[in-house]
Amino acid sequence: MPANQPLYAYIHGQITPLEQAFLHVSDLAIQRGYGVFDFFKVHAAQPLFLDYYLNRFYQSAQLMELTVPLARPALIEVIQALIRRNDLPLSGIKMILTGGYSADGYNPVEPNLLIIQQPLMLPTPEQVARGIKVITHDYLREIPPAKTINYSMGIRLIKQIKAQDADDVLYHHQGFVTEFPRANFFLVKHDNTVVTPATNVLAGITRRNVLALTEQPYPVTVGTVTLDDIYQAKEAFLTSTTKRVLPVVQIDDVVLGTGKPGPVTMALLQALLQMEEQQQQTVVIN
Amino acid sequence: MPANQPLYAYIHGQITPLEQAFLHVSDLAIQRGYGVFDFFKVHAAQPLFLDYYLNRFYQSAQLMELTVPLARPALIEVIQALIRRNDLPLSGIKMILTGGYSADGYNPVEPNLLIIQQPLMLPTPEQVARGIKVITHDYLREIPPAKTINYSMGIRLIKQIKAQDADDVLYHHQGFVTEFPRANFFLVKHDNTVVTPATNVLAGITRRNVLALTEQPYPVTVGTVTLDDIYQAKEAFLTSTTKRVLPVVQIDDVVLGTGKPGPVTMALLQALLQMEEQQQQTVVIN
Repeated sequence: MPANQPLYAYIHGQITPLEQAFLHVSDLAIQRGYGVFDFFKVHAAQPLFLDYYLNRFYQSAQLMELTVPLARPALIEVIQALIRRNDLPLSGIKMILTGGYSADGYNPVEPNLLIIQQPLMLPTPEQVARGIKVITHDYLREIPPAKTINYSMGIRLIKQIKAQDADDVLYHHQGFVTEFPRANFFLVKHDNTVVTPATNVLAGITRRNVLALTEQPYPVTVGTVTLDDIYQAKEAFLTSTTKRVLPVVQIDDVVLGTGKPGPVTMALLQALLQMEEQQQQTVVIN
Repeated sequence: MPANQPLYAYIHGQITPLEQAFLHVSDLAIQRGYGVFDFFKVHAAQPLFLDYYLNRFYQSAQLMELTVPLARPALIEVIQALIRRNDLPLSGIKMILTGGYSADGYNPVEPNLLIIQQPLMLPTPEQVARGIKVITHDYLREIPPAKTINYSMGIRLIKQIKAQDADDVLYHHQGFVTEFPRANFFLVKHDNTVVTPATNVLAGITRRNVLALTEQPYPVTVGTVTLDDIYQAKEAFLTSTTKRVLPVVQIDDVVLGTGKPGPVTMALLQALLQMEEQQQQTVVIN
């Protein structure tokens, strides 16, 4: 992208400068926080693991009784056109589907689909080498398998996270650990087995990818994870599209293991990076 | 209002035609469903019980770590100006406060305040005479005292409500009844005492008003209400700003009492109407 060239977005059926992308206040996202979204990475004009993200986007819409106005091939065409138009080396694309311009401010109508592409900041090597500190909070998302736009709890807790000098908040429900507001959670036990909560979580695509790393020497599985488990973990990490595998070195007041990112976590990060590179070589879009 | 004259709204610090009231897609309501709101009635240029609604609006903002950009006197001036501009005989005014135009799409920044005024439809005498049928659903709002814009569950259940030929959904949490998505719940017991759930509910202003009707022959109190209680109720009703007191005559498969609106409900509706009339005569705004 030439310097200072404006970004473009897709809204109201066409590609428009992002700075001119507006929704009327009657939209149900504004009136009632009603919408779903998804978000994937684009490396050198290649969307990574796009199939999985699209599957989830259509599923979220269905779970919330919304219809994506574009069928899958047409949606992919729009994504391709946006990628060509913006020409960014490394970016994230967010698709948002809202309840539409509702006349009565409550009943969903024809949904609004908007697609935004923006430069992406991945964690720095220093962040990965240091790991993060997290706090815990009892909260269960309303419809865990749906990626809705409702982040009321996570955003409301930002102040509390900062007050405790932490980086993020890990949700549990009555002692059963689930997920972060925007990431999944994995724990490494003292026998080097790796487990991520099986239920009441969003099916993260990076979570899926880590679960698919079957060539590792340690089994990675889904299961039950309690607060007791995490305080006794040898290592822990989160996974997300933007953060990949990011070590967690402290949970509440408990320092995990040595207090530094552990070997299992780092090995999985390396394996995930390899998988992403393979994807880039495999996928040809355009 | 002269016929066909456009409505006006307040947005970005000024009064603008409603049809030109837009938010940029970077707004946190669109990105993350993050915002609070409130809604009050205006009869003949008089906002009813405005103090209570403003109290709740500022409290909701505080609970969600947002700051209303206008102090109370300035907000009242804007409301008055909007009422004069639109000149509607009967209307509702909705104030929405969002997390603002967030550069990173997650951290709240300077909030956006928008105020919309629209004609109001009250229940018809036929609707009141017939009463409504409701279904029940286990759900607890995330931050019950805050009037957030998050109506994901209520809107998602619209299809289910219609499929069961019902009018609304009454939430309970593990058998303890709380509220409707947009209204409070009251139950009349066989001894003619009236009770509304005490906790885990939004503090409705119409609920407050009904609780303040102390000259009635039956005590109206707050307490615990279970699913068992409601199925055995003599009468039931909901309260809301737009619906006032609306009889509930069936809950799930259980017909309440005679299946018609009962005398206690209708007496409370009459008393509430009198209270509203007194408010209109008392309040002088402008």
